[in-house]
Amino acid sequence: MNYNDQLYTSFIKQKIDALEKMTDQDNPYTRIVFSKKFYEARSWLKNEYQKLGLEVSTDDAGNLIGLLNSKTDTDKIVIIGSHIDTVPSGGRYDGIAGVVAALCVVKHIKENDINLPFNLAVYDYLGEELNDWSISCIGTRGMIGALNKDILFRGNSSGEILKDEIDKIGGNSKLLTKPFTIIKNIVACLELHIEQGKVLEQKKIDIGVVRSIPSISRFSVEINGQAGHSGTILMDQRADALVTSSEIITFVNELALRLSKESNQHFVSTIGKINVHPNAAAIIPGKVEMTIDLRASSKSSREQYITELEKQINKMNQSGPCKIEMKNIAFAPYVEMDKELIKLFKESSDDYGFSNIIMDSGAGHDTAHLSRVAPASMIFVPCKDGLSHCPEEYAEISDISKGTSVLFKMVEKLASLNQN
Amino acid sequence: MNYNDQLYTSFIKQKIDALEKMTDQDNPYTRIVFSKKFYEARSWLKNEYQKLGLEVSTDDAGNLIGLLNSKTDTDKIVIIGSHIDTVPSGGRYDGIAGVVAALCVVKHIKENDINLPFNLAVYDYLGEELNDWSISCIGTRGMIGALNKDILFRGNSSGEILKDEIDKIGGNSKLLTKPFTIIKNIVACLELHIEQGKVLEQKKIDIGVVRSIPSISRFSVEINGQAGHSGTILMDQRADALVTSSEIITFVNELALRLSKESNQHFVSTIGKINVHPNAAAIIPGKVEMTIDLRASSKSSREQYITELEKQINKMNQSGPCKIEMKNIAFAPYVEMDKELIKLFKESSDDYGFSNIIMDSGAGHDTAHLSRVAPASMIFVPCKDGLSHCPEEYAEISDISKGTSVLFKMVEKLASLNQN
Repeated sequence: MNYNDQLYTSFIKQKIDALEKMTDQDNPYTRIVFSKKFYEARSWLKNEYQKLGLEVSTDDAGNLIGLLNSKTDTDKIVIIGSHIDTVPSGGRYDGIAGVVAALCVVKHIKENDINLPFNLAVYDYLGEELNDWSISCIGTRGMIGALNKDILFRGNSSGEILKDEIDKIGGNSKLLTKPFTIIKNIVACLELHIEQGKVLEQKKIDIGVVRSIPSISRFSVEINGQAGHSGTILMDQRADALVTSSEIITFVNELALRLSKESNQHFVSTIGKINVHPNAAAIIPGKVEMTIDLRASSKSSREQYITELEKQINKMNQSGPCKIEMKNIAFAPYVEMDKELIKLFKESSDDYGFSNIIMDSGAGHDTAHLSRVAPASMIFVPCKDGLSHCPEEYAEISDISKGTSVLFKMVEKLASLNQN
Repeated sequence: MNYNDQLYTSFIKQKIDALEKMTDQDNPYTRIVFSKKFYEARSWLKNEYQKLGLEVSTDDAGNLIGLLNSKTDTDKIVIIGSHIDTVPSGGRYDGIAGVVAALCVVKHIKENDINLPFNLAVYDYLGEELNDWSISCIGTRGMIGALNKDILFRGNSSGEILKDEIDKIGGNSKLLTKPFTIIKNIVACLELHIEQGKVLEQKKIDIGVVRSIPSISRFSVEINGQAGHSGTILMDQRADALVTSSEIITFVNELALRLSKESNQHFVSTIGKINVHPNAAAIIPGKVEMTIDLRASSKSSREQYITELEKQINKMNQSGPCKIEMKNIAFAPYVEMDKELIKLFKESSDDYGFSNIIMDSGAGHDTAHLSRVAPASMIFVPCKDGLSHCPEEYAEISDISKGTSVLFKMVEKLASLNQN
């Protein structure tokens, strides 16, 4: 089978260029969930859905859906989704490539007047990126009933309550306590994403078919010392919360480095966010808040990490001048993608003669949550230097185009498997 | 001689209570130089000067002056000054006690119709606390010609230029390149301040007569790594700017601890301010900016500190994944107070039977800058638990009152020494 990139490239480029402009101007590329720019992008996407003749709706979790109804009377549904929100100073492809690819697949199906034996939905999953409420994947957690009251009633740093934001964007936060009824009708949840790592690029491979997504844990750490004058408090009389925090940062980094080698599986841990109070040059820091991010493909190394970190913090609490408190604030378990869908994705790639491998994801994705309740799988396309969550993030349109054609082929295969 | 605290306490309490209210409401006690609350406090102080019948003016460096002219025709002047600005979440006494004490001394002189053989000025020195332009003691540096163009043309984090702020408040930034002409007429620069340490409290001593003020150096450190996705970049492939910063923070703390013991003199170093970019939980920090604060009473230990720190940073630049740049952004040399004024302060305290000691300051003060060009000295009064630059900062009104009476006695002594 021949692959014709002309079917996809100009459309993909045009849509990615359009979304690229919807960023905080001073801080490209920033389109945080619920921000003004995010609302702007959602309006744009709604319009794109309408231009393709899709039925537009927002579900109770705030996901923006463009639905192509089957001409056959059926409840069955195939979802192709990803997200258009970004991290602060993030990139132009993370999530975005997947939503654009989904639009492109639907366009191709419409233009060729292909009837499918299932409804086909494009999803912009709400707020995939970790946000100021310390939660990621709002939309897919909502779909599977994993947003509990503790999360929904959380305030962000401006005091805005998460549930209110979900309601404002068109969701219904009161109805998020159990899995959505649509789930039983799902034939497959599919997602295209940039790899955000270097494997495909280094091995010069077109398509990564994802086998697993690591567990993600997040911990808040609060370190309380005593603020004071940087000139007058003697060195041996200090309870400097930043000095204590530095000890923890160094410990976490060394522990993760060691466990990643020992476990020989995907294992990373990061402290990316730190707030120091009062954060002034002539004041000894009195308080520090940090968030620890942990991704593990092995249960035992995750448990070992937590045990060793808690032991270290206990030790520091007993012997050090500051009081340290650590709390688990988010968890998503390790998941494996649907084996049948993995096989079909591989075949779809083979059909075009694209090189491909089965691989594990380093990052978390909406598809991880959906895979807990429905058949789900995803593919990766290469990105430059493995960079992501930064403005330098880059992927070739031709690579996204190849992935898009694999998605289209996958829908075709699912269609023939689901004919009555 | 009997000390009558009734002369001072109610006035001091009233004025400190009034200034306490001029704070950012969410963040007591915050009255940053050039902020709205600072302007409010300046208006209040101007009114206080006027109520005491003082001649009000703002000098070219933006210091707010209340002048009591001598009935004798003279250019000679005695200055009693301190500052009413605060650090973020600072205290109610640091600087404030000194300005209020100066007002109180002038009130007492006016009420008793005492003629002095010199003019007596109350100074609110502009912006003593370290600010967002990384400079402290704007007003006194300006008086002695120590504000160079590099400092005056600096922008703060909102892009406001320091010289423009000085001009807006009534100064003349064009005329700050050489020492003010008033300096040759100065008989003495006096200041009362809370100790900001524990010495007086622990030894139950009323008055600390200051012998020296340590050198203060500030360095900016910029650490550049590579931002990236916290899930996908492997542990051994990272250039995490926060991990590198933590190594520096730990090194600085240990180095200062060791040198403070070895030198057996006042030696402290602090990293109180750190900005992490982009500071989001799912992104490896790509860049960190920090400010190092260093106070040393010994030239050799300061030099040793800088040598060892630079060596460490060079080593980290050669072997580590991040690029580190350190720059000296401010320096105030070690100074000794005027010996004659120290003697007179001690005698003034003895006259009332107040216990006193000669001591070294841990903090920097405006008087340090003035002491480089004019006779200058200062006294400390006790504060609670050595806490300062934090909301818990506290001093007894009765202790400030004792210091105020010593200031008054000091003016009397200077008057008799300066009769023609």
